[in-house]
Amino acid sequence: MDSPTSRRGGAANRREALARRGNVQRSVLQNELPAYSILDDERSDRVLELAFTILETVGIEFRHPEAPGRWRSVGADVEGARVRIKRDLLLKLIETVPSEITLNARNPERTITLCGPRTAFSGSYGAPHVLDFDNVRKSSTLEHLQNFTKLAHQAKTIQINGGVLAEPQDVDVRLRHLHLVGEPLLLSDKPYMGAVTSRTAANDTVRLSQLVFGEEFVDTNTVVGSLINCNTPLVWDEAMINALEIYSRANQAVICTPFIMGGASSPVSTVGACAMIIAEALTGMAYSQIIRKGAPAIFGCVAQTISMKSGAPLQGSPEPVLMNLIVGQIVRKLGLVWRASGLWSTAKVPDMQAGYESIMSTWGYMLGQANWIIHAAGMVEGGLAISYSKFVQDVEQIDILYEIFKQPRFDDLDEVLETLIKVGPGGHFLGEAHTRKNAFYIPELSDANSYEQWRDEGRRDAHQVGLDRARKQLDEYQAPWIDDGLKDSITDFMARRSREILSGDFEQ
Amino acid sequence: MDSPTSRRGGAANRREALARRGNVQRSVLQNELPAYSILDDERSDRVLELAFTILETVGIEFRHPEAPGRWRSVGADVEGARVRIKRDLLLKLIETVPSEITLNARNPERTITLCGPRTAFSGSYGAPHVLDFDNVRKSSTLEHLQNFTKLAHQAKTIQINGGVLAEPQDVDVRLRHLHLVGEPLLLSDKPYMGAVTSRTAANDTVRLSQLVFGEEFVDTNTVVGSLINCNTPLVWDEAMINALEIYSRANQAVICTPFIMGGASSPVSTVGACAMIIAEALTGMAYSQIIRKGAPAIFGCVAQTISMKSGAPLQGSPEPVLMNLIVGQIVRKLGLVWRASGLWSTAKVPDMQAGYESIMSTWGYMLGQANWIIHAAGMVEGGLAISYSKFVQDVEQIDILYEIFKQPRFDDLDEVLETLIKVGPGGHFLGEAHTRKNAFYIPELSDANSYEQWRDEGRRDAHQVGLDRARKQLDEYQAPWIDDGLKDSITDFMARRSREILSGDFEQ
Repeated sequence: MDSPTSRRGGAANRREALARRGNVQRSVLQNELPAYSILDDERSDRVLELAFTILETVGIEFRHPEAPGRWRSVGADVEGARVRIKRDLLLKLIETVPSEITLNARNPERTITLCGPRTAFSGSYGAPHVLDFDNVRKSSTLEHLQNFTKLAHQAKTIQINGGVLAEPQDVDVRLRHLHLVGEPLLLSDKPYMGAVTSRTAANDTVRLSQLVFGEEFVDTNTVVGSLINCNTPLVWDEAMINALEIYSRANQAVICTPFIMGGASSPVSTVGACAMIIAEALTGMAYSQIIRKGAPAIFGCVAQTISMKSGAPLQGSPEPVLMNLIVGQIVRKLGLVWRASGLWSTAKVPDMQAGYESIMSTWGYMLGQANWIIHAAGMVEGGLAISYSKFVQDVEQIDILYEIFKQPRFDDLDEVLETLIKVGPGGHFLGEAHTRKNAFYIPELSDANSYEQWRDEGRRDAHQVGLDRARKQLDEYQAPWIDDGLKDSITDFMARRSREILSGDFEQ
Repeated sequence: MDSPTSRRGGAANRREALARRGNVQRSVLQNELPAYSILDDERSDRVLELAFTILETVGIEFRHPEAPGRWRSVGADVEGARVRIKRDLLLKLIETVPSEITLNARNPERTITLCGPRTAFSGSYGAPHVLDFDNVRKSSTLEHLQNFTKLAHQAKTIQINGGVLAEPQDVDVRLRHLHLVGEPLLLSDKPYMGAVTSRTAANDTVRLSQLVFGEEFVDTNTVVGSLINCNTPLVWDEAMINALEIYSRANQAVICTPFIMGGASSPVSTVGACAMIIAEALTGMAYSQIIRKGAPAIFGCVAQTISMKSGAPLQGSPEPVLMNLIVGQIVRKLGLVWRASGLWSTAKVPDMQAGYESIMSTWGYMLGQANWIIHAAGMVEGGLAISYSKFVQDVEQIDILYEIFKQPRFDDLDEVLETLIKVGPGGHFLGEAHTRKNAFYIPELSDANSYEQWRDEGRRDAHQVGLDRARKQLDEYQAPWIDDGLKDSITDFMARRSREILSGDFEQ
């Protein structure tokens, strides 16, 4: 890895300035600032201890015909679905989890590696509704899914396309996975996410991946990451375990993700919720290693609280920020790759609340150095809808995060001082040579113009600016290069599997 | 100061839970998380060195008839208005600046102390326009100023009322200071800010303060903080120096504030801008000590960049976040009280951009542990307008910051574990005893309800929610207790001084 200092050299600066101005794709965010640890070692250890204690006393359920037996075979204490795991066993199992995971893209330039102080971003996940261009909330359709897949392809700060950007409700539920995986493969050349809702969905994802990358490559490399949600509190259910097994066996990444609704599915305790997150995520990851030693597994963390007044999940709340900071601190120590959620919001429309919550929720995982942020663009209504305008606006906000998490330049200070001496008190810097060859960050979508200019240009708020931008991008969308033969193979596979599934070849 | 652990005891928790739910006033934010330092010591020293070098080589101008002479008398190198100051002299002068400043309020319960990891908040400053309840942008009037003074009084996360919440343009410019200081004294019992635009304004502020607190008290205690802006780059102008001298002589706090427009009034260099901020702020503070040793002076930091495309100032940009982090790191080391700006925005209306920018700009100064945040509520249009809806919404966002910068509880982990054991895998926590006596944060204004509920309740976006709330608060406003005699003295003073000033008793 380059040192912060050498990275700030002339050529690199110009490239980066170019990237900022145009729509040049940015690879994963390389965080040059220190990680922010809020607990002293003693407290940090107590959180981890509590997680171990939960697993040794309460245990966790693997509600699956074979899983408890597999746990028994490695030495866990098993009683029905309930599995109690000693810390030594757990730590031994996760020892083989890779601390660095490369997601290979069909365009090698889009391949990314998740590890250390690096962060990748992908869009909102699972929206059954779309806030459409006419500002009406509609059921998501295949066309919406394709649109968001295109926007994610164009988005310069999104590295991973998919997963369920919009759930295509006009497609038979048994066939949706073909599109959730097929569309990103056809419309984008970035890494993508796998389908998890059935064994058929997971198997077809692996087969589509083999079509694109070859069977041998897929067996020895990782090309797809899939979301395996824990049924918090402390239950891994059959469907998720099935998907996990298929992906782990195929050497593909599973993101073992507790889905904390603090106060409902966890105690009203920031530390208690963290301990549950750790207990759940680590057991999922450990289980992946029972399936295949060395298979890539990612520590997932979805931290939310609920309103004790209405039971509604809250986003942009303070405690989840602390949960991400604490979980991050512990996961970094364990040397695992971890995933968080944001810039999310429960606002129904892309309004000021959506802006507040999106950025407030960002603090924890960015300062805690999460490696993959899912839900990072477009989410409104707590994930029940995805918004075109918020999607492109969020992409710009992520761009700002890239610039925040950089060490400032020190290599031009002689010239800075010379310029200061030349300009002197009361002068201005606009025309100076140093000023002309450098630039502070300039947003494309946020409006800093005068009131009069803004008024004369149509009084567009951020929502309208986002809609206009998304429409323009879709109009200008160009599919990335794909080999014609491969394209045909993918579409043929999707058509053939659709016919087969509708004829009954479908495994729950 | 209480330790984080003891502060989390039962009674304190109940009080805080109460404060969160009702409109109970919160005192300064007591930051329990570690300060975030992004530079290693060597780099941090280089920034400070650059500031010293600027002052030794370029120098700084004090454009005032007496100021250069005063600098010469303490040993600086003076040439006309240009003052060159050696680091030893500067460091010696600022040695007597208090590292802890208490702002006494006329209601002792509202008295606050600025120091260490504590943060106070005050509203937007200087708006010539108001976004009114009918969504129309208007010239600010005395009625608007009174309204925002009332809202600031009610705001549970605003500790300092004033300064120029809205510039009352229907009041003769020579009389405005009487209202900017008089209205907060009459309509609120929180600490307030002083007027600085003329010697008359500053002197009248001191006299009003003496009316309220008594001459002797004011001479030995601090009751008002005033904004002394540097004319960046490297110029202190006559009007600001006049105001500084009057306040420092009267033992009242001056906030010596560079106003960086990075790229125009500073080089395009994050580090260079920081060095200028340090050079400017420290010279203002040092000058206050020449006027009166030990007078309270606050390190000001307004960090903005401009768009190199349009020249417009940007807010919510990345570099100012870094500037606040760096300046904070150095100011903490120097042991000074410091002031920053936010939650600000250049958005013209309280839209998603306003939300994004307000929170993005917050990171630097909160993690850098600024002691006083000006512009913290209501700002749109880069300060050229103040918004009713954004004001009350920002107050809630600050409330969330209070909860983020807290150490999580560790004292209830036994009960957390017991609850977990009782609930077990797949259960839920809602009815449990531990859940019933605790609560995660519940926002009052951010809407987490279902789409259907939101729709049925009128589809209000955050802007409308804010307007409704602000209207309700103004309807419910009750003036705090004030001694009738004092009230008469203040109104008499305002009336008499108005007559005198209009008759010509006005000093620029």
